[in-house]
Amino acid sequence: MAEEAAVRAQAETVRRLKQDKADADEIAKEVAKLLEMKAQLGTDDGKHKFVLKTPKGTRDFGPKEMAIRERAFKAIISCFKRHGAEVIDTPVFELKETLTGKYGEDSKLIYDLKDQGGELLSLRYDLTVPFARYLAMNKITNIKRYHIAKVYRRDNPAMTRGRYREFYQCDFDIAGQFDPMIPDAECLKIVHEILSDLQLGDFVIKVNDRRILDGMFAVCGVPDSKFRTICSSVDKLDKVPWEEVRSEMVGEKGLSPEAADRIGEYVQLHGGLDLIEQLLQDPKLSQNKVAKEGLGDMKLLFEYLSLFGITGKISFDLSLARGLDYYTGVIFEAVLLQQDNEHLEEPLSVGSVAGGGRYDGLVGMFDAKGRKVPCVGVSIGIERIFSILEQRLEASEEKIRTTETQVLVASAQKKLLEERLKLISELWDAGIKAEMLYKKNPKLLNQLQYCEETGIPLVAIVGEQELKDGVVKLRIVATREEVNVRRESLVEEIRIRTSQC
Amino acid sequence: MAEEAAVRAQAETVRRLKQDKADADEIAKEVAKLLEMKAQLGTDDGKHKFVLKTPKGTRDFGPKEMAIRERAFKAIISCFKRHGAEVIDTPVFELKETLTGKYGEDSKLIYDLKDQGGELLSLRYDLTVPFARYLAMNKITNIKRYHIAKVYRRDNPAMTRGRYREFYQCDFDIAGQFDPMIPDAECLKIVHEILSDLQLGDFVIKVNDRRILDGMFAVCGVPDSKFRTICSSVDKLDKVPWEEVRSEMVGEKGLSPEAADRIGEYVQLHGGLDLIEQLLQDPKLSQNKVAKEGLGDMKLLFEYLSLFGITGKISFDLSLARGLDYYTGVIFEAVLLQQDNEHLEEPLSVGSVAGGGRYDGLVGMFDAKGRKVPCVGVSIGIERIFSILEQRLEASEEKIRTTETQVLVASAQKKLLEERLKLISELWDAGIKAEMLYKKNPKLLNQLQYCEETGIPLVAIVGEQELKDGVVKLRIVATREEVNVRRESLVEEIRIRTSQC
Repeated sequence: MAEEAAVRAQAETVRRLKQDKADADEIAKEVAKLLEMKAQLGTDDGKHKFVLKTPKGTRDFGPKEMAIRERAFKAIISCFKRHGAEVIDTPVFELKETLTGKYGEDSKLIYDLKDQGGELLSLRYDLTVPFARYLAMNKITNIKRYHIAKVYRRDNPAMTRGRYREFYQCDFDIAGQFDPMIPDAECLKIVHEILSDLQLGDFVIKVNDRRILDGMFAVCGVPDSKFRTICSSVDKLDKVPWEEVRSEMVGEKGLSPEAADRIGEYVQLHGGLDLIEQLLQDPKLSQNKVAKEGLGDMKLLFEYLSLFGITGKISFDLSLARGLDYYTGVIFEAVLLQQDNEHLEEPLSVGSVAGGGRYDGLVGMFDAKGRKVPCVGVSIGIERIFSILEQRLEASEEKIRTTETQVLVASAQKKLLEERLKLISELWDAGIKAEMLYKKNPKLLNQLQYCEETGIPLVAIVGEQELKDGVVKLRIVATREEVNVRRESLVEEIRIRTSQC
Repeated sequence: MAEEAAVRAQAETVRRLKQDKADADEIAKEVAKLLEMKAQLGTDDGKHKFVLKTPKGTRDFGPKEMAIRERAFKAIISCFKRHGAEVIDTPVFELKETLTGKYGEDSKLIYDLKDQGGELLSLRYDLTVPFARYLAMNKITNIKRYHIAKVYRRDNPAMTRGRYREFYQCDFDIAGQFDPMIPDAECLKIVHEILSDLQLGDFVIKVNDRRILDGMFAVCGVPDSKFRTICSSVDKLDKVPWEEVRSEMVGEKGLSPEAADRIGEYVQLHGGLDLIEQLLQDPKLSQNKVAKEGLGDMKLLFEYLSLFGITGKISFDLSLARGLDYYTGVIFEAVLLQQDNEHLEEPLSVGSVAGGGRYDGLVGMFDAKGRKVPCVGVSIGIERIFSILEQRLEASEEKIRTTETQVLVASAQKKLLEERLKLISELWDAGIKAEMLYKKNPKLLNQLQYCEETGIPLVAIVGEQELKDGVVKLRIVATREEVNVRRESLVEEIRIRTSQC
């Protein structure tokens, strides 16, 4: 009995333990569920934990920045149109493979989209590769087009100096088989026109040719296989001194010290027609076929640029290399020159604001039969220009308007909301830019103040007496002058008074 | 001896086998390496295997499509400016968490970027959430702005009907604490102005209010927790018949058949002021606080719309629900009406071309203290409008110009490239839109033909005699008339002759 009881007790203990275990499991499950729900709630309802910012290297454009941006775009677009360019647009992302193998060492900076099923996509890195893809896809052999759009690079941003991860490029390109250097010269003319028009201060446009660089590398004793990587090193000369570039060539890239020193002599050369003539006589370079071709075209280019009257700002510069892989001929880069500026305490930031060149092989990379479409183009780096214009505006006293409103529809007394709505509707329908305060009974003073703040030049005031008389009181904000205008003449009167604005 | 030999032979066999195995391993490794290299080469050098296309659901805009797009934008932007809006822009991607919990069931359509280290990012899904983030981040409590930019949705594209994965939205929003329904009425006025201006044919703007919907759900016996999901079902009424929506409510969403039937009675109602008055007398609805509030505001809205003279195109429609979670008050949607069209064989596609509403809680979701900024806004769905304009243009005989070039600089004889370059440079510098052919010695006929093809109205012809006489021959392409113009008067003459264009 005692034994049986003991066994029964033990069995009971086991049963209970099992039950406890089951309960504990059940509880653990419930807890896990609750935690999961909490986590979900946390993301749905976590409004107080948000980091309120734009992604790294990006920024919003508020109304003021947009006003500046539109000014710069206007100058650029009107130049592109002056030169007879059409406009195109492409998607912000491309198939990943479209971008592969086009950018050399810079490919690591491409933004990829997450694989959510379907195609693998990347954000565009520039506008040139999408343009080449567009030409090949549509079998276009002949076009002059511009394209203004944002491009994306996972670079280290330096936003105060206008370097962002999302930034605009303004590209102008001429595609087609043409007589040498005529389109190339036009691209340089365009850079000259835009930089002059934007009044960014003094600038110089450096010009070189990939063929001259390649010829130079050959006669200096650089092995063929090292042309591109040595070219990348030369490209750094605008940021670091020759000594550093030389030690990269010799130390990291295994170039012989003698070859590096020979390069060093060439890359310090810059000048104009005289330098071209000198190099055409150079005992080594003149023996190199591609270099000679490049120098011959450079001479032709300078002749055309002199007909355009812009050689004063052009410098043939053997240190200019440009990073991207796809260039095949003329390359160029516009640089703003540091200047004393009386209005600013800090000096304006300087650097490259435009660049481009000839890329005759890129379209062929997209064509099944490798058919080439020669191209030359320029890209205006607008963010740096925005930065300069913003800094300048901040330093000046100029007040920039962010709307174009011509007239505020106001009321002198209470209970005139309906009359204001009727009048403003008439003005809108007549094409007048008009605003009103969204209050039933705004004070006249507040309405006038709003005009002062926002730069609205006119106020159309409705009052009981005016309604009876069939007139509207038109107030000129700047002079505080007030005139009664017959209602049927109001639109015309507003047009006349704002036509100079 | 024999045994020893056998053992030695066996050992040798083992050794050989081991060596073979090792060799095989080595070979396998080498093969793997080679395959890997081949794969890498395949991506770098696989130019002949490219799929030449834009990503699914996206398209390029060529010069013709751009010309149409710019026309539509011009109408829309001039309307937004007429109403005194400022303009802003935000980055194409946001922190992923910024978009989380804003779009309800549609969140699955958001494009995420790949995690390449750093922040988790998503492409913007609309312009409203970035706008709310912008307001909260900059503590702006008061703004009227527009924003025209591309948004991204991983939806099933139907591109012939203008539904893309990358598409433009043109948004106009008014943020701030104002007297009721004045900004809301302006948003509807804007939709009316834009659709009238674009001449897309007859349209109706459906209007409803989330508060009326919620009140209706309450009095029909929908449990509070089911409001949003039943609202999603109602939202489908523009695409599927009531019977289907009802069975979704009852079958999938577990609503009682009686409640569904009561909803069914309400959602077939649409009308104007009369319907509002009728519902204000409705024994059930009039007892519901939020419904009554919504109906009161709806009445006020209609009064303002009648002052704007646009009630003829407005329909108070109880079946309008709008998909997005964030609406809190008035909602609306503009729909083009099917019409007989004499010029087209296929009927124009119809559907929603604009939508919007009031979202008073969204900005507060981004504010650490939950401070609300009431907002109301409208979004113009421009892609569908592009489709219609494109179809219409194709059906018409109108030839659309894709450049604005005023004059082609041409030559009558050979060896005049330099003279053409000099003249075109003068014209560009004077602001004239000018082109020339990029050939050293183009035939006059080819130059004239280029003008015919591209619609350039004037040709400035330099020839030896003209150069001697100090004149340029100006040819009017349309009439073939030719006049000699003194070189110093050429710019003025071109301006006068193209001022009507």
